[in-house]
Amino acid sequence: MNTQSVKAFGTDAPEAALKEMQIDRREPTSKDVEIDILFCGVCHSDLHTARNEWHGTVYPNVPGHEIVGRITRVGDAVRKFKVGDLAAVGCMVDSCRECEQCQKGSEQYCEKGNIQTYNSPDKHLNKQTFGGYSEKLVVDEDFVLRVPDNLDLAATAPLLCAGVTTWSPLKHWNIGPEMKVGIVGIGGLGHMGVKLAKAMGAHVVVITTSTSKIEDAKRLGADEVILSTDPEQMSANANTLHFVLDCVSAEHDVNAYLKLLKVDGTLALVGAPEHPLPIAAFSLIPARKNFAGSTIGSIQETQEMLDFCGENGITADVEVINIQDINEAYERLLKGDIKYRFVIDMASLKTSS
Amino acid sequence: MNTQSVKAFGTDAPEAALKEMQIDRREPTSKDVEIDILFCGVCHSDLHTARNEWHGTVYPNVPGHEIVGRITRVGDAVRKFKVGDLAAVGCMVDSCRECEQCQKGSEQYCEKGNIQTYNSPDKHLNKQTFGGYSEKLVVDEDFVLRVPDNLDLAATAPLLCAGVTTWSPLKHWNIGPEMKVGIVGIGGLGHMGVKLAKAMGAHVVVITTSTSKIEDAKRLGADEVILSTDPEQMSANANTLHFVLDCVSAEHDVNAYLKLLKVDGTLALVGAPEHPLPIAAFSLIPARKNFAGSTIGSIQETQEMLDFCGENGITADVEVINIQDINEAYERLLKGDIKYRFVIDMASLKTSS
Repeated sequence: MNTQSVKAFGTDAPEAALKEMQIDRREPTSKDVEIDILFCGVCHSDLHTARNEWHGTVYPNVPGHEIVGRITRVGDAVRKFKVGDLAAVGCMVDSCRECEQCQKGSEQYCEKGNIQTYNSPDKHLNKQTFGGYSEKLVVDEDFVLRVPDNLDLAATAPLLCAGVTTWSPLKHWNIGPEMKVGIVGIGGLGHMGVKLAKAMGAHVVVITTSTSKIEDAKRLGADEVILSTDPEQMSANANTLHFVLDCVSAEHDVNAYLKLLKVDGTLALVGAPEHPLPIAAFSLIPARKNFAGSTIGSIQETQEMLDFCGENGITADVEVINIQDINEAYERLLKGDIKYRFVIDMASLKTSS
Repeated sequence: MNTQSVKAFGTDAPEAALKEMQIDRREPTSKDVEIDILFCGVCHSDLHTARNEWHGTVYPNVPGHEIVGRITRVGDAVRKFKVGDLAAVGCMVDSCRECEQCQKGSEQYCEKGNIQTYNSPDKHLNKQTFGGYSEKLVVDEDFVLRVPDNLDLAATAPLLCAGVTTWSPLKHWNIGPEMKVGIVGIGGLGHMGVKLAKAMGAHVVVITTSTSKIEDAKRLGADEVILSTDPEQMSANANTLHFVLDCVSAEHDVNAYLKLLKVDGTLALVGAPEHPLPIAAFSLIPARKNFAGSTIGSIQETQEMLDFCGENGITADVEVINIQDINEAYERLLKGDIKYRFVIDMASLKTSS
C-alpha cells in the first residue's frame, strides 16, 4: 500500500518526553478522506497511553483523538465529504461493522473491539494507529464527522471525546426537562456534562469537593451546587436526583453520590479510577438504584452531539497551546491546572523547521 | 383500640432463643381481615432481625413474613375477601399510600418507608409490628394477597418473600424468551430465581462455586451450569448473559459475574453482603454494564407472581418444621443446611399447651 510521510509528535518510551517524529499515513483508498488537521484536543487518555499507564502501549505512540481539520483529498467512492469541507475525527477510526453492536450503530461497543484512533492495530498498514498530534490523517469517511460552521474550531475539538463521552450517557438515560441531573467532577468531561445537560433542559446540580469551583459551575450552567464535603448539604439532597454523571477518575466514595439518587436512579461512571470502588449493597437495594459505566459514543451519537452543539452554540472551554508545549501541558494536566481542556494549534507543528 | 391476645413465638433479646409468648393483635377495623395463620416461611431476615444483626430491632421481636392462612373475620368495608378464603401476607402490611412510589404502586419503595410485617412502627397500636410466627394476624386487605387454590400451602409460603424478591427484578428487567439469565447463589432466593426465570421462558444459566449443586440446579430448571471456580468456564462464557440475578449474601467478587454480561447487561443484587463490594470501573465502562439492587416487590407484583405460580404449578422446595424447632432451624440455616426453605406448620403453635 502506498504511503506518505508526515510530521507528528509522539514518544518512543513510557518515560520519554514527546518530540517531533515522522510517521506514515496511507494514500487515501476509495472510501477514505485525507484531513489536514487544524486542532487536536489533549485528553487525559493521551497521557495515560503515552506513558503506558494502562499497559499495552505500542511505541512509537502518537496520541490525539479530538481532531478537527479540513478535507484535502477524497477517494472516488466518498459521498459525505468534498475537498475543502470541515471534518472531525474522535476516538474511533473503524470497527468490525458486523457484530450485533456495530449492526445497531453502537460501534463504541463493537464486540471485536473497535479500531481506536491511536494505539490500535491498523487495518491497512502493519502497524499501530497514530493519532491527531500530526499534520494529516487518512480515515474511512464512515468514521468522519461533519463540523458545524458556526463554532470556534479550537473549542470544538474537545467535543470529539469529552463532548460525546458525556453526551452518550445523558442521551442513553433519557435526560431532558423535568429531570434533576447531578454532575460530579468538573474537569474536561464534567464541564461538558454541565453544558450539555443544561442545554438538554435538565435541572443541573454540580456536586463538588471544592468551594473554589462553585462560581465556575454556575457560569457553566449549573442551577445548583452541592458541596460534597458538607454532610448537611449532602443529606438535605438525598433521594433528589434522577441521574448522576460521575466524571471523577481519582478514588472517591461513590456511595455518597448514590445516596443523592431517587428510586430507580442511575449513577453512570465515565471517569476511570485505577482501583475498584467499594459499593455497599444498601446503596443500591432499598431504592433499586443502578451503578453503571459508559464509554465514548457511537458515530451517530457523535454527529448528533456536534449538530446539537452547533444549534446551541456549545463548545469546550479551552486553552490553545503549541505542540512544542505538550510536555508541559501534560504536567499541568496532572495537577488539574487547566480550565478545562488544552487544545493544540497544529499550525505549530506544520511550521516547525 | 380493642385488642385480643394471641400466641406467638419470638425473642426478648439478641442472644436469647425464640420461645412462646403472648402478643396483642388489634380487633379488625372496617378495612381489615383477620387471618388464621397456617404456614410461615423462615427467611434469613428473620434471623438477622431476631439477633439484631441489622441493628434497630425492638424487643420483643416476633419474626415471619412469608405467611399463608385462611380468613376468619373481615371488616365491613372489606371487598376482596370473605371468611374462609385462603390469604397470604408478605414483607409489608402498609405504606404511606401518598408518595410518588405508592401512587404508582411501588409500595416497596415508599419514600416514607413502608410498614414491614415485623419490627416496624405499628400504625394502630403503639408498638412494633409482630410477624407471622403467631396464631393470627390482622391486616388491611390492601396488603393481603389471594392464594391460588391448586398449590401446596406450605410450599407456597416462601413465595411471599423469596418468590417476589426474585420475581420483581426479573420482571423489572423484562426477562423472557430469547434472553440468557444467570442466577448466582442457589439458596432460598436463588432456587426460586431459577424456577421463575425458566417459567418466564428465559435460558437459565446457574453459576455456582460448588460441583455438588450442579445436579440440583438442573433439576430446578437450569439449562446450563457454570462452575465459577473454573477460570476456563468463566472466560468461555464472558459477554453471554443479558441479566444476572445475584442472590449471594456473603462476600463475593461481583466483577467476575459482571464479566459474563453482554453489552448493556444488568447484574441485580438481591442478597445483602455485610461489607461493600469492590467494583472495578473497567467492569462497567467498556460495555455500559449496570450493577443494580432490588428489594422485595410491590403488592401488585406479589399478586401477579402468585397467580403465575398457580398457573405454572410453581412452589418453593421446603422442609416443614414445628415452631418448637425454630432455634435449631436457625442454626442449620446459618450452615446452609436446607434445601431450600424451612416452613413452620403453625398447627404446632396452636396445639402447644
